[in-house]
Amino acid sequence: MNPDELKRTLESLRDGKLSVEEGLTRLTDLPFEDIGVALIDHHRELRQGVPEVILGESKTADQVLAIVAKMAQRKSNVLVTRLSREKADILLSAFPAGTYSGDARTFTLVQKPIEARPGRVLVVCAGTSDLPVAREATVTARMMGNEVEELTDVGVAGIHRLFANSEKLRSATVIIVVAGMEGALPSVIGGLVPVPVIAVPTSVGYGAAFGGLAALLGMLNSCAGGVTVVNIDNGFGAAIAATRINQMERDKR
Amino acid sequence: MNPDELKRTLESLRDGKLSVEEGLTRLTDLPFEDIGVALIDHHRELRQGVPEVILGESKTADQVLAIVAKMAQRKSNVLVTRLSREKADILLSAFPAGTYSGDARTFTLVQKPIEARPGRVLVVCAGTSDLPVAREATVTARMMGNEVEELTDVGVAGIHRLFANSEKLRSATVIIVVAGMEGALPSVIGGLVPVPVIAVPTSVGYGAAFGGLAALLGMLNSCAGGVTVVNIDNGFGAAIAATRINQMERDKR
Amino acid sequence: MNPDELKRTLESLRDGKLSVEEGLTRLTDLPFEDIGVALIDHHRELRQGVPEVILGESKTADQVLAIVAKMAQRKSNVLVTRLSREKADILLSAFPAGTYSGDARTFTLVQKPIEARPGRVLVVCAGTSDLPVAREATVTARMMGNEVEELTDVGVAGIHRLFANSEKLRSATVIIVVAGMEGALPSVIGGLVPVPVIAVPTSVGYGAAFGGLAALLGMLNSCAGGVTVVNIDNGFGAAIAATRINQMERDKR
Amino acid sequence: MNPDELKRTLESLRDGKLSVEEGLTRLTDLPFEDIGVALIDHHRELRQGVPEVILGESKTADQVLAIVAKMAQRKSNVLVTRLSREKADILLSAFPAGTYSGDARTFTLVQKPIEARPGRVLVVCAGTSDLPVAREATVTARMMGNEVEELTDVGVAGIHRLFANSEKLRSATVIIVVAGMEGALPSVIGGLVPVPVIAVPTSVGYGAAFGGLAALLGMLNSCAGGVTVVNIDNGFGAAIAATRINQMERDKR
Amino acid sequence: MNPDELKRTLESLRDGKLSVEEGLTRLTDLPFEDIGVALIDHHRELRQGVPEVILGESKTADQVLAIVAKMAQRKSNVLVTRLSREKADILLSAFPAGTYSGDARTFTLVQKPIEARPGRVLVVCAGTSDLPVAREATVTARMMGNEVEELTDVGVAGIHRLFANSEKLRSATVIIVVAGMEGALPSVIGGLVPVPVIAVPTSVGYGAAFGGLAALLGMLNSCAGGVTVVNIDNGFGAAIAATRINQMERDKR
Amino acid sequence: MNPDELKRTLESLRDGKLSVEEGLTRLTDLPFEDIGVALIDHHRELRQGVPEVILGESKTADQVLAIVAKMAQRKSNVLVTRLSREKADILLSAFPAGTYSGDARTFTLVQKPIEARPGRVLVVCAGTSDLPVAREATVTARMMGNEVEELTDVGVAGIHRLFANSEKLRSATVIIVVAGMEGALPSVIGGLVPVPVIAVPTSVGYGAAFGGLAALLGMLNSCAGGVTVVNIDNGFGAAIAATRINQMERDKR
Amino acid sequence: MNPDELKRTLESLRDGKLSVEEGLTRLTDLPFEDIGVALIDHHRELRQGVPEVILGESKTADQVLAIVAKMAQRKSNVLVTRLSREKADILLSAFPAGTYSGDARTFTLVQKPIEARPGRVLVVCAGTSDLPVAREATVTARMMGNEVEELTDVGVAGIHRLFANSEKLRSATVIIVVAGMEGALPSVIGGLVPVPVIAVPTSVGYGAAFGGLAALLGMLNSCAGGVTVVNIDNGFGAAIAATRINQMERDKR
Amino acid sequence: MNPDELKRTLESLRDGKLSVEEGLTRLTDLPFEDIGVALIDHHRELRQGVPEVILGESKTADQVLAIVAKMAQRKSNVLVTRLSREKADILLSAFPAGTYSGDARTFTLVQKPIEARPGRVLVVCAGTSDLPVAREATVTARMMGNEVEELTDVGVAGIHRLFANSEKLRSATVIIVVAGMEGALPSVIGGLVPVPVIAVPTSVGYGAAFGGLAALLGMLNSCAGGVTVVNIDNGFGAAIAATRINQMERDKR
Repeated sequence: MNPDELKRTLESLRDGKLSVEEGLTRLTDLPFEDIGVALIDHHRELRQGVPEVILGESKTADQVLAIVAKMAQRKSNVLVTRLSREKADILLSAFPAGTYSGDARTFTLVQKPIEARPGRVLVVCAGTSDLPVAREATVTARMMGNEVEELTDVGVAGIHRLFANSEKLRSATVIIVVAGMEGALPSVIGGLVPVPVIAVPTSVGYGAAFGGLAALLGMLNSCAGGVTVVNIDNGFGAAIAATRINQMERDKR
Repeated sequence: MNPDELKRTLESLRDGKLSVEEGLTRLTDLPFEDIGVALIDHHRELRQGVPEVILGESKTADQVLAIVAKMAQRKSNVLVTRLSREKADILLSAFPAGTYSGDARTFTLVQKPIEARPGRVLVVCAGTSDLPVAREATVTARMMGNEVEELTDVGVAGIHRLFANSEKLRSATVIIVVAGMEGALPSVIGGLVPVPVIAVPTSVGYGAAFGGLAALLGMLNSCAGGVTVVNIDNGFGAAIAATRINQMERDKR
Repeated sequence: MNPDELKRTLESLRDGKLSVEEGLTRLTDLPFEDIGVALIDHHRELRQGVPEVILGESKTADQVLAIVAKMAQRKSNVLVTRLSREKADILLSAFPAGTYSGDARTFTLVQKPIEARPGRVLVVCAGTSDLPVAREATVTARMMGNEVEELTDVGVAGIHRLFANSEKLRSATVIIVVAGMEGALPSVIGGLVPVPVIAVPTSVGYGAAFGGLAALLGMLNSCAGGVTVVNIDNGFGAAIAATRINQMERDKR
Repeated sequence: MNPDELKRTLESLRDGKLSVEEGLTRLTDLPFEDIGVALIDHHRELRQGVPEVILGESKTADQVLAIVAKMAQRKSNVLVTRLSREKADILLSAFPAGTYSGDARTFTLVQKPIEARPGRVLVVCAGTSDLPVAREATVTARMMGNEVEELTDVGVAGIHRLFANSEKLRSATVIIVVAGMEGALPSVIGGLVPVPVIAVPTSVGYGAAFGGLAALLGMLNSCAGGVTVVNIDNGFGAAIAATRINQMERDKR
Repeated sequence: MNPDELKRTLESLRDGKLSVEEGLTRLTDLPFEDIGVALIDHHRELRQGVPEVILGESKTADQVLAIVAKMAQRKSNVLVTRLSREKADILLSAFPAGTYSGDARTFTLVQKPIEARPGRVLVVCAGTSDLPVAREATVTARMMGNEVEELTDVGVAGIHRLFANSEKLRSATVIIVVAGMEGALPSVIGGLVPVPVIAVPTSVGYGAAFGGLAALLGMLNSCAGGVTVVNIDNGFGAAIAATRINQMERDKR
Repeated sequence: MNPDELKRTLESLRDGKLSVEEGLTRLTDLPFEDIGVALIDHHRELRQGVPEVILGESKTADQVLAIVAKMAQRKSNVLVTRLSREKADILLSAFPAGTYSGDARTFTLVQKPIEARPGRVLVVCAGTSDLPVAREATVTARMMGNEVEELTDVGVAGIHRLFANSEKLRSATVIIVVAGMEGALPSVIGGLVPVPVIAVPTSVGYGAAFGGLAALLGMLNSCAGGVTVVNIDNGFGAAIAATRINQMERDKR
Repeated sequence: MNPDELKRTLESLRDGKLSVEEGLTRLTDLPFEDIGVALIDHHRELRQGVPEVILGESKTADQVLAIVAKMAQRKSNVLVTRLSREKADILLSAFPAGTYSGDARTFTLVQKPIEARPGRVLVVCAGTSDLPVAREATVTARMMGNEVEELTDVGVAGIHRLFANSEKLRSATVIIVVAGMEGALPSVIGGLVPVPVIAVPTSVGYGAAFGGLAALLGMLNSCAGGVTVVNIDNGFGAAIAATRINQMERDKR
Repeated sequence: MNPDELKRTLESLRDGKLSVEEGLTRLTDLPFEDIGVALIDHHRELRQGVPEVILGESKTADQVLAIVAKMAQRKSNVLVTRLSREKADILLSAFPAGTYSGDARTFTLVQKPIEARPGRVLVVCAGTSDLPVAREATVTARMMGNEVEELTDVGVAGIHRLFANSEKLRSATVIIVVAGMEGALPSVIGGLVPVPVIAVPTSVGYGAAFGGLAALLGMLNSCAGGVTVVNIDNGFGAAIAATRINQMERDKR
């Protein structure tokens, strides 16, 4: 029952075409999703001009193709994450206007302008092996309308490289820090800047890295106050979190 | 060496009172923290009118007393976290103007007005046992100048109570969600609102709660995009993260 | 907005005292809990004649006392779990009609008849050290209206004792099996009977028992099909699960 | 020694064809499985009209084929779980009357009518990636004679979709909830309905999902009373547990 | 139903006092424990002259006292393990003939001669902190009738001390090796002797010892073939395992 | 310096061909392995008529081939464990007298009679999936000269099958129990027999089996006294432990 | 800004070509890396004549090739670690002067003499399966200018082999001990020698080895004082640590 | 058998007082510890002028007192670690010349001059809560004859404080870095200096610090090459490792 139907129900009641009892019955059975509409208005607003997202990893090429086709028909912008090159090639044959990033493992299809958000997201990356996760964050944040800059290969063991880029750190409104191994970079950056820092542990490393657990625990125990953390390798989630923060800005204007 | 001293050094050089060699020596030994000043300007700005913070847990009453005394002399606002009632009583005798919250386990001493920040922090709390962590977030966020509202005892198993408070959810600019046990509340809230959601797992629970591990993992794997997580029981860290977000807003004005 | 209010709103609309727009506004803001009522009818029904429950562990004696007092006023039956003897003594002074079970660590106050449920719950217990958890299940299940029988000290290493009680196993409609250490008992029982088996791992044991983890994992990997598991030491939860199963029976009559 | 043999032994004794000593010897050596018959009567009853089950995963195609052939000869109904398509193709050539479900990874062969059970099992599934586990539950429950309905893709982050299906929730006698990632769905459903809820964590997710551990811990710590849990990805076990519950119903009639 | 009863049942049948049907009913209900008797004969034999054992840890002084009193009446030998000095003092007042070992935390009461077993148990202990666990093994093994020798404080880091005692190693028929920290001693000893080596990890250590986990894993991964392991701190279990081995010897004579 | 050389040194000294100082120097530098000879005499004895063992898993086919060739030259008996069929085929071409067991993944080459040991090893196996580990134990124990019997597919959930084989349990001197999933079988068997029970957890299972961890913990926490445990899937180690026990027997005669 | 530029800035200031304000601006923006230069002088010194290192594992053959080409142009010595044979073959075609070690999985290219360091590194290796990690340490340490000796296949269970090589142990200035399974070797060696012992756990083993965790924990809990540990399989890191120690020696001369 | 006895044996042989066979027997039984002497010479040398060490934690005050008394009689220097103030007070009454450090929890008794070692140990400490572990390292290193300097409260989040002390970093020959929480400090320092860096994780922190596990994993995964790690809170072990390194220096002179 959409708002129009609700309005029609009330009009029928007013006009005597519907008894109070019938009205009660209809409203008591009022589907929750419609009531939900009010509540998730902001959510919808958030989604305007924003891509529909598909997690490519656990789907077959055919399944991804079918979903993208439906979205393309709606003229939506499309973002597929964790997509292998094999599946991407199939997508690209069908949608030559799309773009595949081998680094980020993302397929993007832009069919209408992406509405720009205020604020600038800086994606910082400790080592070259962390790059795919960082790139997933970059592509996602851009598809969400954020201005994004990258700063790569600035590890804790060569910390002077980080300081040499203090200008970039200072100009960001949100910083996403991607790091594997001991995951110490967010602490250092969190101590240097006052803006929100979102830490993304990666599964880079071996042995006692335990698939990203070491980095994850390191980031959760950051001695820099106010660093927040997302799941291991979750560049996508970090970008959405950054978008939520920039979104908030726009609402306030 | 502060900026004034740096200026004086350069003037002496210009005026021939200092040789180039002497100038080189001084500057080569330039303490890093002074160079750091430029970089951490924003950090200082963040700290203006903001309390100095002491982690009370691993310090003796005497140690806390000494530190608070020094801060009080500087006319700083003071926040002591994780403070037992026993130590608090000693602090209160010395600083009767201070306030102890038994729930939050915080001692606060306000000696100058707290500068208000824009935005509103909503602290949501799943069960009454999670209240101490929620309160630590509330007290910290208020001491940082945020407007804070609380919404308590809205668990996932009684989810209609959450929906009954949709107005509160809608009016917040940042939501801190505190939950133990399975830690599912941030996912539900993250699906309802577009603003930043900071999840705080608590050590509430027993058995397979493993001291908050269950809630922590649940939150890291949230199916709601963009939920970020802090350490178990870290209400303080969540409030600082919220402050970073609201801070950013002010900078933009 | 309760059903009466909703009816009045529709009547006002019918009678022209309320415009369609005003009606829309009211209904859009319809509190979720009221809609929720319909959905949780069964839940309420479940609660009829059923005790209100308080988790005593993380509350002060004063807090427990206050909550019980309020419940007592409503003439509810009351069940407090995980209650120390110290707190129980305070409760008993205030409510001499109540009963404290030192084994189960429960306080119960029966103020109106407990409605009997069909079916019989058998609580089986591997060792004497598992008894407190088993007793918590027994007391809870009884307060919920179930007929309960206990079978204690039947470990896997002395399995003939179990077989000697096959009559008890056969006459139960639900079996709760409480076991620590390797937690093997539910597998054996699950292989002997066709009724639902709810396994409760306990934290009994030392060393590689890891606080109940060994028993928990053992039960989750049970080679007997259809054994389900609750949290470590969660006798209460097992009893509620058994109640849900017996509840279902009643609904079908 | 089957009941007939036992009877003949006693008759021989009565008729003097067997001395008391000879009788004693025979009975002392009485094979346990025969004595076991009495005890596992109900178990057998449970199995009547019920498929014989093979875990396909750790067996070669040849091994599965041989076992199915033997079962087919007995005119049993057959259920093979965790069967790859490759092995299934070999089975289907030999038993064209069988059915393979690629989603559920099950092969079924129905050779005699499945006796219907009372009650209705609802299988709820959080995300599309959880579908294979849900389908395994559905196929198994149907082969066991349960009426089964499915409700898919109702995640916690889009909780209004769940509420829109409250009718389905209300009409079930047992609900199997399949969810990966944070595993929060059983808590929400457990708070909405009074019937037994069986939670199945899945290995869906990455990073800190730790192969289903996060979902498993979340479900064990559910704040909704009486939710029980089976092993990760164990759709089969959940269906057997549901069958045990429905079985109980029939016994009571 | 004991053998006598069984005999009488068959005699009644032979004598026509019991019909075949009545005989069938009685035998079908034949209690399992009676059949079990045959099977556990050896078990009983094992227990002859052997103490009855009580785990003192999770019982109150009163409970221990009551159980010991009952055993004392049967003139059994008694072994109580994991008993605190406080509880021991109460036991000693009631049973002055008993002995308490503060090191081993055992109470023993010998009321009839302990039957000697062949073979010699050597209990080796890495550090002085491991002594309590080693002593528990020693006391238990002695109460079980084994000849026991101890070799203490021979750590891996001072391995020449071990070699200086090669005579003791050579003369043992079973060696129990008790070690905490890295748990390496069983590997070294297992490489030196051909007899059974039973490794007991202890919870001695701190930090990454994780309560004995490091020693446990070390022992399970021993590069010396045929080392077997018991639970952390389980000196009792190791002694029982040694007794089973020596028991076997006696059976063969 | 072998015993002959040592003897020659002493003779030279006696005969005045070597000064005391020269003798001292030679003996102080006495290689440890020679001294070690005395100590490991028993170890050698253990190895007499016993196969040399190669862990095939981490070696290339060429490496295994080379080692076996050297052993074959010495006329040793040879046992290769954890050998894939591919590598086995290469071995079999070179040593057609050898035998490969696909189940056990072992290659054996018997070139001289295996000396029989007293005692009988019973290898019990919970499920068919545990068979490879059980077979590795069987093959190894046989190559070590033990008489071995197998009892397969006797799970805890169908415990009457175990009881039906009580004769086999009673006639063994050592029992190796191989089980995955919850690993409960050793507890049941340990409660039925007085002989040494060696438990082998297997990595069979999925989800919360965690690669054999559940079974391992279950066995370490066995409520049956004196059950000892070896590493996950370590059928070889269990057989060596059994051999150590039977070895001891022979020494005593 | 290098020291020369800094000097020129000060001269311009002295000479009046630069105002104090302009000087302040330049210095405030002083790039951190230049200041960092002073601090990391020793670091550079360490790198003199030392290879540049590439982690080959997570890079494509093309990426490795490009990096090596750039280094080769600089006439640097090059070390590539964790390089598969496939990638190595491509490198060797381009740089036939290079060397690939299949054991160590390293590619090395020496273009200028490696400056020798004082001290001798001994790399000890418990089993042949640990050899690849040991070889990585050996190759790395040699490329860093250390004299290196290897001692392989000296396990704890055959400890006399270690003692037979006491001369090698005594002549080393640093000992790297590589061991998997229970990781006990460093404790034994640490008890025999007074020089620094660096322990490298390997992922060799199965079951409860948990990918090297058992060895890692064992080494961290070594009862030999002063043993230090690096990550699992990190032969490279151990060699760098040894180089740091030998480096220190040279500095002192 | 000490060297004198060995000499006498050889003389008797030379003089014909002992036959070759008798000599062989005596030498075959040669106690290992005597042979061991040669091997552990260096070890003894290491111990010269060095304190004897007692781990105070798991010993009673009486036990510690007795051991110290024996050492005092030998005029040894004494170091007791992990000693509570209560036990220390008892020690101080008996040995008023001793010193107790409440921070380090060490008791020291210097009865003869400590021989100075070359090199300088720098103990760096991230937070004030890490101070006790750092102090244990400092006291131990000093008692071992090292020159020690401390640098406290230099966390990663305020990294400019570290750079301000670059002089101290540069002048050390070994650096011990003590840090809890995320344990990132050793990586930063390891990137700044070329000398050996020994990392000590501490159990400081809460929640996901998991008693020092987060710091331990962080340090093992350090991106700075050649950082080595000791057990959690093991300040003592780090100091011994530093002593081994400085020891080596002395040997080389």
